[in-house]
Amino acid sequence: MANYHKPESKTIQELKDIATKLRIHSINATQASKSGHPTSCSSMAEIMSVLFFHTMRYKVSAPRDLSSDRFVLSKGHAAPILYAAWAEAGLFPSNELLNLRKLDSDLEGHPTPRLNFIDVGTGSLGQGLSVSAGMAYVGKNFDKANYRVYCLIGDGEAAEGSIWEALHFASYYKLDNLCAIFDINRLGQSEPTSLQHNMEVYRKRLEAFGFNALVVDGHDVEELAKAFHEAQNTKGRPTAILAKTYKGKYFPTIEDQENWHGKPLGNKANEVIQHLTGMLKNPGLLGLHPQKPLVDDVSVVDINNIKLASPPNYKLGEQVATRLAYGTALVKLAKNNSRVIALDGDTKNSTYAEKIKTVDPSRFIEGFIAEQNVVGVAIGAACRDRTVAFVSAFATFFTRAFDQIRMGAISQTNVNFVGSHCGVSIGEDGPSQMGLEDIAMFRTIPGSTVFYPADAVATERAIELAANTKGICFIRTSRPATAVIYKNEEPFVIGKGKVVKSSAKDQVLVIGAGVTLYEALKAADELSKVGINIRVVDPFTIKPLDAQLIVKNAKEVGGRVITVEDHYAEGGLGEAVLSAVALERNVVVKKLAIPEVPRSGPPTALLDKYGISSNKIVAAVQEILKIILENSNNINSDSCGCGGSGGSVTG
Amino acid sequence: MANYHKPESKTIQELKDIATKLRIHSINATQASKSGHPTSCSSMAEIMSVLFFHTMRYKVSAPRDLSSDRFVLSKGHAAPILYAAWAEAGLFPSNELLNLRKLDSDLEGHPTPRLNFIDVGTGSLGQGLSVSAGMAYVGKNFDKANYRVYCLIGDGEAAEGSIWEALHFASYYKLDNLCAIFDINRLGQSEPTSLQHNMEVYRKRLEAFGFNALVVDGHDVEELAKAFHEAQNTKGRPTAILAKTYKGKYFPTIEDQENWHGKPLGNKANEVIQHLTGMLKNPGLLGLHPQKPLVDDVSVVDINNIKLASPPNYKLGEQVATRLAYGTALVKLAKNNSRVIALDGDTKNSTYAEKIKTVDPSRFIEGFIAEQNVVGVAIGAACRDRTVAFVSAFATFFTRAFDQIRMGAISQTNVNFVGSHCGVSIGEDGPSQMGLEDIAMFRTIPGSTVFYPADAVATERAIELAANTKGICFIRTSRPATAVIYKNEEPFVIGKGKVVKSSAKDQVLVIGAGVTLYEALKAADELSKVGINIRVVDPFTIKPLDAQLIVKNAKEVGGRVITVEDHYAEGGLGEAVLSAVALERNVVVKKLAIPEVPRSGPPTALLDKYGISSNKIVAAVQEILKIILENSNNINSDSCGCGGSGGSVTG
Repeated sequence: MANYHKPESKTIQELKDIATKLRIHSINATQASKSGHPTSCSSMAEIMSVLFFHTMRYKVSAPRDLSSDRFVLSKGHAAPILYAAWAEAGLFPSNELLNLRKLDSDLEGHPTPRLNFIDVGTGSLGQGLSVSAGMAYVGKNFDKANYRVYCLIGDGEAAEGSIWEALHFASYYKLDNLCAIFDINRLGQSEPTSLQHNMEVYRKRLEAFGFNALVVDGHDVEELAKAFHEAQNTKGRPTAILAKTYKGKYFPTIEDQENWHGKPLGNKANEVIQHLTGMLKNPGLLGLHPQKPLVDDVSVVDINNIKLASPPNYKLGEQVATRLAYGTALVKLAKNNSRVIALDGDTKNSTYAEKIKTVDPSRFIEGFIAEQNVVGVAIGAACRDRTVAFVSAFATFFTRAFDQIRMGAISQTNVNFVGSHCGVSIGEDGPSQMGLEDIAMFRTIPGSTVFYPADAVATERAIELAANTKGICFIRTSRPATAVIYKNEEPFVIGKGKVVKSSAKDQVLVIGAGVTLYEALKAADELSKVGINIRVVDPFTIKPLDAQLIVKNAKEVGGRVITVEDHYAEGGLGEAVLSAVALERNVVVKKLAIPEVPRSGPPTALLDKYGISSNKIVAAVQEILKIILENSNNINSDSCGCGGSGGSVTG
Repeated sequence: MANYHKPESKTIQELKDIATKLRIHSINATQASKSGHPTSCSSMAEIMSVLFFHTMRYKVSAPRDLSSDRFVLSKGHAAPILYAAWAEAGLFPSNELLNLRKLDSDLEGHPTPRLNFIDVGTGSLGQGLSVSAGMAYVGKNFDKANYRVYCLIGDGEAAEGSIWEALHFASYYKLDNLCAIFDINRLGQSEPTSLQHNMEVYRKRLEAFGFNALVVDGHDVEELAKAFHEAQNTKGRPTAILAKTYKGKYFPTIEDQENWHGKPLGNKANEVIQHLTGMLKNPGLLGLHPQKPLVDDVSVVDINNIKLASPPNYKLGEQVATRLAYGTALVKLAKNNSRVIALDGDTKNSTYAEKIKTVDPSRFIEGFIAEQNVVGVAIGAACRDRTVAFVSAFATFFTRAFDQIRMGAISQTNVNFVGSHCGVSIGEDGPSQMGLEDIAMFRTIPGSTVFYPADAVATERAIELAANTKGICFIRTSRPATAVIYKNEEPFVIGKGKVVKSSAKDQVLVIGAGVTLYEALKAADELSKVGINIRVVDPFTIKPLDAQLIVKNAKEVGGRVITVEDHYAEGGLGEAVLSAVALERNVVVKKLAIPEVPRSGPPTALLDKYGISSNKIVAAVQEILKIILENSNNINSDSCGCGGSGGSVTG
């Protein structure tokens, strides 16, 4: 193998000693926290030793250094040994490891970027490789730099389909700067893994998936050093190190035994530590230190204050689908900033993500039909502020990646998700293709911003705002073309809604979004013919919701609110509004939403069948006026005598 | 090959003609509906012809017949050709195909079990094989019958990791009654697939995943017939037919061309149909008919009215984790009904699903760490009422399978999901392991029932009720042990909550569930020391929620409600309660919920830090009493003069 020099025997012994020290740290830390996974750490001790003290190039003093190699611990439950490696490397004193899992320590049970040496949170299994592939893709194609990405994967989590999606992606895009290390320690949580130590099956699978697959003894530092060298020198395809290891390696009576997953060693700890200490040849300071990057070839990129290259340019009343406006906005952002990128899973001609290719084909990443990996790649691509990533899909197919999105919040990602084809308004394709739970899903994400722009102007501004907003953003776009209702110069602000129709005589506040805003406006016209005025509000963002605007307008119309959404009744616009008015007495809310699994059919027929058409809004307005009248009567007859409707009920 | 007889040339020609007819039907149907995927149908026409008129054994007159072979169309967008196959087989007149995608027809854009020849809904890609594997597992291991399961997979969707999870599962469990057919037509929706016609890569991957992999010309009926015969006669491992096909096959100027995905042929239809008609050698009636099953070897199983073998048996105050009570209940159900099964993905010793093995080890299906596939297998196992399936995981890891769960509702599945390790109360493992969005997720599922039992007695009854409830059930269980508060004979009903503490002087209604119910009770004790009485309600089911009980009790305490939940603030208990009181004036709700990504730490410290401990409930009660006083004053000074608190605010 080119340029390979076997490490000196002193180095080899020191790498062995570091592995032993990492084992001891892992035991001590999990003893202190009385929980954790010391046996899962032990199987990978030599891998960590060789990576952190021989193979990887990084700056201990600057863990987020842009030119340094990256390491992602996909099997996040082995966090203690990762923390121990950084402590041994010198980032912090090793006695801090004893604060593992304490409330006031960032050394959490699973790694999160609260620690400056962690790029992304892990702990939900099978996700690290997609994220690593995203980082490697950026390193190779955007940064065009020398840093390499190492991802350590447990054999248990290798059963996750997302791993195989990521493997396929990495080989398809020839990510030779990516090295996947499989810690094949034979034992899962509750029983042996399905493949146990069947190394040949792993080798065949990895080779079939386009990897340079190297089977090694994962406890032999020399074999590992050689394999990592080969990985560094293999061009045109990524390398997988398939390391045969043992769970609880060198823990007498525990090694390779079942029923030791996720348990500190308890009263066996002392004996095991004694055994390990006896293995150390250099118990004191070691001569080995991490190697720095050969060159500092990556610089900070400016991804702040990204603006549309030109303002929205529509005519009022023009029919434009908001999904198309997404494509237009993406083009305008991409023109102004070279780090704006888009990803999609073979729906780019439906979501209009493909439009970015007109600016620069290299700025689009095709992920094929593997949504979990596409999302993971986006998180990897966006981390360390290397890109501003927009990832699109039919809104409902983001459910496929809910776990990745959830972990994205823990990873402090700024990825922007654009979900098209929401609701029954997509029509004939039927329920499997309809996004009816997407708002609920993205609302649960801590720190998320959920945009639901009504027209093309609002959509362009939503995309622009999302590019500059921290945390996960979700922009919900619609399939059908709808009228432009906002002027091109209309300003939009996160958390600020718009009153799109109002009069002094309004009796009911109707809140719609996307297609239902148009139904609300139609309903307003119908109702005005029978002398009933309604106020119509477009929330623009569902999270944060403009509670102040809603409460103010609700009170002005006598506390009668109707929400109408092309979404199931739970967790969407209706419940967001309910939360906004939760502490208001004298405000009632009637939710119109999709009540059941819908059918195939024409969009307008479906809106009506499932109760969110203008006709159904008209009926709901008439009903709420009646109900409130009745309830008011009831309240007026209450013993307290203080109820009331807060306004005229008949106008 | 054993017993293989080449079909007679007459048969071969008739199979070709049927394929041609299926193409014509697919074009006519999508022309009528002005939408759909005729080119995706055309690539699989010979596969359908051979399967439905030569290979499969089934009863056209009884599509749900228990002993018949099953067919799952994983690439659901090719629905028109599946409908056409059944029409040609004689189930319904072929002119009905022209009702494709109409609102009053069950011939929807993607298949759903509204049709009697569809077992499960498809249309979200990559899910069919897991479901098929579940059906095959039941056929082989529980029904011990001869029926075979055929699953047709598109090449685009073969990029989904769930396919590779299912392949691994099928080979691991030696499901030789399963045949996976890959329709490798080279073209995706927006560009060619990543592997195009690289048949050798497919073969290597399938072989590495343990399949008998046969590469065939997918437009050669003779090759297909032979391959299916080999599949039927291959024992000990499943077979994959890798069919090299062309999208739009035999559509002149369209075959193998890009930009024809998901489009009817429009003005090219007549020319194409003319061409196809010219290919027919037997334009009239054909001699071929589907073959019936050789034996009727499957009978109906009784899965109704399943009861716990013995009632709950706890002492009041005994400390029992509800996750453990799940295991206990599972054992009791399994004892009483041989079709109760459990599935898990290597967390069975944490969720306690493993307890079912004490009754019958064969009733547990280990799915390893591949949650999407585990859920798909459960849906397959439960379909056609063959089993009562309980599938368990850490609650948050069901987010991995949200798309499968969503499709489960479309599939009309009755699978029961048991999610353990909910909320911050799991403690030190940290946010990646905490279920904080699971209630929101399962509430969005149409027809779902969401149980959140507070103690072991309630849990056993929840599990018993779930076993007998149609639709998706979710039972949320907790990690920490909590006191038994219900007597063993306490009756539980879906949609009926319990008032667990009340007095005539109550000023606030606090609604808690699981661990927060205990915090609410503690808070009640604290508050009573300062002369404030609160009422405490346990909802038992979050969906349906006992709106009547909540409204009644809310009104009795002056309209002040506090919800407290170990879940994010969106879509959970709080918003469910808000929906329940949405049309009530004079009821206000204060939500206590987890406001951000939590940290690792001791459970009690986390409950307090994130605002859902008894201390925080005490503070919230005091605050709501103040707020309402202030709001009441504001309202009283309103112009309408009709506001009011509906009760004394100081007790």
